[in-house]
Amino acid sequence: MMAIVPFKEKISLFEKRLGSELESSVEFIEAIADDLISAGGKRLRPKLAFLAADLLSANDNLAVDVAVAVELLHSASLLHDDLIDDADTRRGREAAFKRYGNIVSVMSGDFMLAKVLGILAQTNNAEFTQLMSQTASQICEAEVLQFQAASLETYSFDIYNQIIEGKTAALFVAAIKGVAILANLGFKERHALEEFAWAYGRAFQMRDDYLDLLGDAETLGKPVGGDLREGKATFAILKLFELDVYEAREIVKRHASANNDISKMIELIKEYKADDLARAQITYEVEKAISALSIFPDSEAKKELIELARAESKRVN
Amino acid sequence: MMAIVPFKEKISLFEKRLGSELESSVEFIEAIADDLISAGGKRLRPKLAFLAADLLSANDNLAVDVAVAVELLHSASLLHDDLIDDADTRRGREAAFKRYGNIVSVMSGDFMLAKVLGILAQTNNAEFTQLMSQTASQICEAEVLQFQAASLETYSFDIYNQIIEGKTAALFVAAIKGVAILANLGFKERHALEEFAWAYGRAFQMRDDYLDLLGDAETLGKPVGGDLREGKATFAILKLFELDVYEAREIVKRHASANNDISKMIELIKEYKADDLARAQITYEVEKAISALSIFPDSEAKKELIELARAESKRVN
Repeated sequence: MMAIVPFKEKISLFEKRLGSELESSVEFIEAIADDLISAGGKRLRPKLAFLAADLLSANDNLAVDVAVAVELLHSASLLHDDLIDDADTRRGREAAFKRYGNIVSVMSGDFMLAKVLGILAQTNNAEFTQLMSQTASQICEAEVLQFQAASLETYSFDIYNQIIEGKTAALFVAAIKGVAILANLGFKERHALEEFAWAYGRAFQMRDDYLDLLGDAETLGKPVGGDLREGKATFAILKLFELDVYEAREIVKRHASANNDISKMIELIKEYKADDLARAQITYEVEKAISALSIFPDSEAKKELIELARAESKRVN
Repeated sequence: MMAIVPFKEKISLFEKRLGSELESSVEFIEAIADDLISAGGKRLRPKLAFLAADLLSANDNLAVDVAVAVELLHSASLLHDDLIDDADTRRGREAAFKRYGNIVSVMSGDFMLAKVLGILAQTNNAEFTQLMSQTASQICEAEVLQFQAASLETYSFDIYNQIIEGKTAALFVAAIKGVAILANLGFKERHALEEFAWAYGRAFQMRDDYLDLLGDAETLGKPVGGDLREGKATFAILKLFELDVYEAREIVKRHASANNDISKMIELIKEYKADDLARAQITYEVEKAISALSIFPDSEAKKELIELARAESKRVN
């Protein structure tokens, strides 16, 4: 029986390793890395890696490798995703600052991806490298697909699913499956963990999308409808499309630019009970995630994974 | 004795593999990938990989793996660099980001990096993965350092060297050393090839920098002085700094924004014979590259590598 290492200690191992990976002789890169480390965040993906290691009684060092690689990939994709299309103001007064911002975002993100490669060289496991390659591809394809769907106005549940899986679930899978691969886990358990991660990831992103439109601005810390103003049609809106609610299409088409478009869309969603359907779908994914864990004996780690998943359902119900 | 495969056939193997690596179900990614493939370019890095394989009598399949991984990394960095430099054209084509926006351009670069990971998973060689990690880090650090030097006005030969090595030489090294690693070459020969690649790479970038300011606008296909207008101080200008030519510092500081700044700088360079010194430095690196190859017996591949290097010296003399 292994001694249980408190989570706080594990995360501090992770933070230390993350810091050493991001060392650079170039001042501007170090500045961004420092920002990233001090900003912290919930470190949900590292947490998933450590819980998977606990569940499988695998060595925490495996989890640190996976957690750092996955968090670096996640951070790189956030940095690149934050880019703004500022072509119009490039020559203006703020251009220098904005260009500086772009350099910081793009190259620091690339630097993080380079460090992912370094970790993969150290772990030296072709299957894990392949997993990270697939994960990175899925993230890129999802980001571009999201932009493409808004540009070409091609909306479907299939596309939505690919977007939420690529944007969110793929990294959850990488964190959990990465540990399973390095721990040399058998097919059946690996498959169960993967199923958990996909379903939990979908639920997580769908809940995020749900609250972006149907949540409370105060709790959200920003006005509702941000996605809609970027022409993104998320689950509840897709349900309106399915029901041929013409007005919903028009609002998405004009990126909610007319007065009261956001509140009109919320009204339509409630009128057609598309919010109920969205909540039901989130609960469905949460239960699917939890039931995938049934093959594992009860443990503290299993309980925590179940609680994490169930929280997504609770936040919208 | 192996049958010699014509270079045209090797490159067509390379193009085919590159195309299959870049397949995506997402239309906008495919469009950028198609641009990249049809634009072609000189494929200098793949050529170096194939010549290294010839020189070492190594299997061409190794060279294809290395060539595709290196070219993908190179292309990703060009896509990301387009965004940073706000370059109007790249290889004579409209910069991708102008047509599709930053997100698509950045994500397509990231998609290429994801495919590099996939190749590394296939080749499954930790040393090659480590080499690609280092190369990618050096590229990012060089790009940021170049920007940082212009922002903070910190110019030195040391920094210049790190920039040209990261921007150009590192990828030449990856192409050649990658083949040496996968072919399991001994230390002495590997070291010689690496020395060749670093020196050739430095000569290549210094020649590029030289012609950007001191070349002929017509041959160049763009006005001279582009680097200077971005506040970049290249070799000949650094020589003027070393000689405390005050006016040169002022011109760089204002990014050659005053009338006749470019022609004034060219005058100063010629007055102080900094152009002679730059040419001499290029020739020095070329000869260093060539002499590193002396440990290899004469062959067609060795002759071609020597010719490639010597061409850099000829283009400025």
